[in-house]
Amino acid sequence: MTQYEMAKAGQISPQMQRVAQREGLPVELIRQELSAGRLVIPANRVHLAGADGGARLDPCGIGRAVAVKVNANIGTSPISSCREQELLKLNLALQFGADAVMDLSTGGDLDDIRQFLIAHATVPIGTVPIYSVIAHKPIEDLTADDILAVIEKQARQGVDFFTIHAGLRRRHLELVDRRKMGIVSRGGSLLAKWMVHHERENPMYELFDQISAILRQYDVTYSLGDGLRPGCLADASDAAQFAELETLGELVQRARAAGVQVMVEGPGHIPYDQIAMNMARQEQVCDGAPFYVLGPVVSDIFPGYDHITSAMGALAAAYHGASFLCYVTPAEHLALPTPQDVKLGCIAYRIAAHAADVALRRPGARDRDDAISDARAAFDWKRQFELAFDPQAAREIRGRDVGAGVEDDFCSMCGRDWCAMRISRELRRRTSSPVNK
Amino acid sequence: MTQYEMAKAGQISPQMQRVAQREGLPVELIRQELSAGRLVIPANRVHLAGADGGARLDPCGIGRAVAVKVNANIGTSPISSCREQELLKLNLALQFGADAVMDLSTGGDLDDIRQFLIAHATVPIGTVPIYSVIAHKPIEDLTADDILAVIEKQARQGVDFFTIHAGLRRRHLELVDRRKMGIVSRGGSLLAKWMVHHERENPMYELFDQISAILRQYDVTYSLGDGLRPGCLADASDAAQFAELETLGELVQRARAAGVQVMVEGPGHIPYDQIAMNMARQEQVCDGAPFYVLGPVVSDIFPGYDHITSAMGALAAAYHGASFLCYVTPAEHLALPTPQDVKLGCIAYRIAAHAADVALRRPGARDRDDAISDARAAFDWKRQFELAFDPQAAREIRGRDVGAGVEDDFCSMCGRDWCAMRISRELRRRTSSPVNK
Repeated sequence: MTQYEMAKAGQISPQMQRVAQREGLPVELIRQELSAGRLVIPANRVHLAGADGGARLDPCGIGRAVAVKVNANIGTSPISSCREQELLKLNLALQFGADAVMDLSTGGDLDDIRQFLIAHATVPIGTVPIYSVIAHKPIEDLTADDILAVIEKQARQGVDFFTIHAGLRRRHLELVDRRKMGIVSRGGSLLAKWMVHHERENPMYELFDQISAILRQYDVTYSLGDGLRPGCLADASDAAQFAELETLGELVQRARAAGVQVMVEGPGHIPYDQIAMNMARQEQVCDGAPFYVLGPVVSDIFPGYDHITSAMGALAAAYHGASFLCYVTPAEHLALPTPQDVKLGCIAYRIAAHAADVALRRPGARDRDDAISDARAAFDWKRQFELAFDPQAAREIRGRDVGAGVEDDFCSMCGRDWCAMRISRELRRRTSSPVNK
Repeated sequence: MTQYEMAKAGQISPQMQRVAQREGLPVELIRQELSAGRLVIPANRVHLAGADGGARLDPCGIGRAVAVKVNANIGTSPISSCREQELLKLNLALQFGADAVMDLSTGGDLDDIRQFLIAHATVPIGTVPIYSVIAHKPIEDLTADDILAVIEKQARQGVDFFTIHAGLRRRHLELVDRRKMGIVSRGGSLLAKWMVHHERENPMYELFDQISAILRQYDVTYSLGDGLRPGCLADASDAAQFAELETLGELVQRARAAGVQVMVEGPGHIPYDQIAMNMARQEQVCDGAPFYVLGPVVSDIFPGYDHITSAMGALAAAYHGASFLCYVTPAEHLALPTPQDVKLGCIAYRIAAHAADVALRRPGARDRDDAISDARAAFDWKRQFELAFDPQAAREIRGRDVGAGVEDDFCSMCGRDWCAMRISRELRRRTSSPVNK
């Protein structure tokens, strides 16, 4: 049985217990949310068992009832493929706050890189299976057998969640013609090409029940891809996007009926004022299935800084209901991310996820903020650095002016005589100050 | 007459005309908003005239009816003071999107640095006059004559807006005792110390009408400081903050009655879910006076990344009514910003301001986004870089993999065969594709 089926049957799994423990929530709540399809625990049985002596997955819950999670995309490209480089990115991603990692490799020995990353990851690993199919042949030659074989193979390797672009129907393609940017999803564009070439329906849609059967067997979670996600502000919330969303809503029900856990992917590029509406619409159309959003970026004109532009959108999305934030790096729209880009993307998204958890008033979410504020008020720099998300970065900035004197009761921003905090502390010591009498 | 008085009298000034031109709005709307106190044009007569052969101010409007503006704080500290370094920061700030600059110098020859920056700035320059008073004497020795003399002197130099912490009343101080972080405003803490020492009311409050008379003479705009802005999430929206806000509302009316333009400063540190409420409350209490916010940061645990943490809050603030965003740099809470910090802070805030303008659907706000999206869809990299906010950063990222081949129809993120945009364009060319028949 999958986690979803167990939850429906009223059973508590060790994975539900672990998620409850990590979230500080009652396990019965986790079970209820799973059972309602409002929470997923992407946990392939193979990855859970740590096959071939590899890492065992530490289960992670994704849904509206638990803390917001962050995904980092890594992976090779035809231009650059080295598994040690990807392991470096994996470890940086985990160090800087990713809760899950997608291997989007498209260059080198894909099977080997995937196996290598799964063996090194205690977090859920996701993939887009169609990438490995077409690494070996033109998209036009893709067959149903290819699709099922690659999904079976990756499920057996231990992948925890699959992006499957089954929501993009052939009839949706005409809606794309009205767009500025067309299709910007890799999987979506490949399947569109197949449909146009063969004059047939999306094979992912047609094979959906067979795919579900494989996912159920390994308890791989669906991440229903949005092949028609908008690629610029002008295309946001358009007919193509929402037509696909309707199909995604239908597929959520079919996945659940097949006993498979399911979440739904979302845009992309959305003006800030349309984010709340998009989150509400997905929740309604997809019956509460966790929403896994890419950004969204809230402006198109800042290439080189899209980790910031998109993390702003991600915070709004999470606050309004998204459960899983797929990071965007400074390299977005320009190049394959470097390890440094991975780090910066993860940090920007950890900020968004954390700020959303605080804003949603999740129990305990603000504890670390309160603790660092106490340390700041007490000029306890050592403790402040310990509590900082990236202690090294904070230490370096403070250190460049102050040098070794980290115990001093000021920082170089204002200098000693001008330090509001120091003066404020001094005032507080005068507990017998006239105004307080 | 000040811009405010002229607007009240139904007169159109050249400054109103220039603002209308820059904003693409009818000048009568600018006059009406000015007249209602909902818009300010910080434009000291001296700076407008370009005294001593210095730069002439290019007037800039700040208010809910016009595009969101960004302020960059620069200035020396006792640890580092060099006017050429400050000029470098000024120029970087302007290059990367600041609409105004505050000189917060506290080290070196303050009068000289201020004069130097005004002479080089075509944007409004703001200061916190109390800083120059106490650079020469302990705060306890501050007199009414000191305050009025320094305000007169800086107004004569051409400063366009002054932060005056007149809203912090002596009776508010007891509210601070309940706080985690106390007072984190430099000006606020200094005045609190003075009040406690002398057992008297805030001299800025007591001298308010005399200060207003000086500001009116030069048409310097009030930026009413929030000495009790929260310094951490835990202190946000507390009794101290809102008690001071009430006084700020009172002072807005007194400033207007004196014919002086006025805006109001705001927090600071606020959880994301409290931002909309804070903006609405300021608008109501301060009768629509433009709100000039610092950040707010939406989490306390990311020192080293507070330009991002706070720009997220700034976008929400601007969307909900703030008109003027005071940037925060990566050095916040740690050190004096370097020129690189100034650049990064300005970019993060330009993103926030622009995304808010797009979200508020200001006419034309999205034009550049649409143009860069067209360039992206056409693989016109040259045009894409021209339209990018920081062309050099974008070119560098793309260039590190692709080298000189910037005309190619893909980027190294996906590589040629995997480029969704390329496939999408290919599909679009098949206008006779079966699905479109």
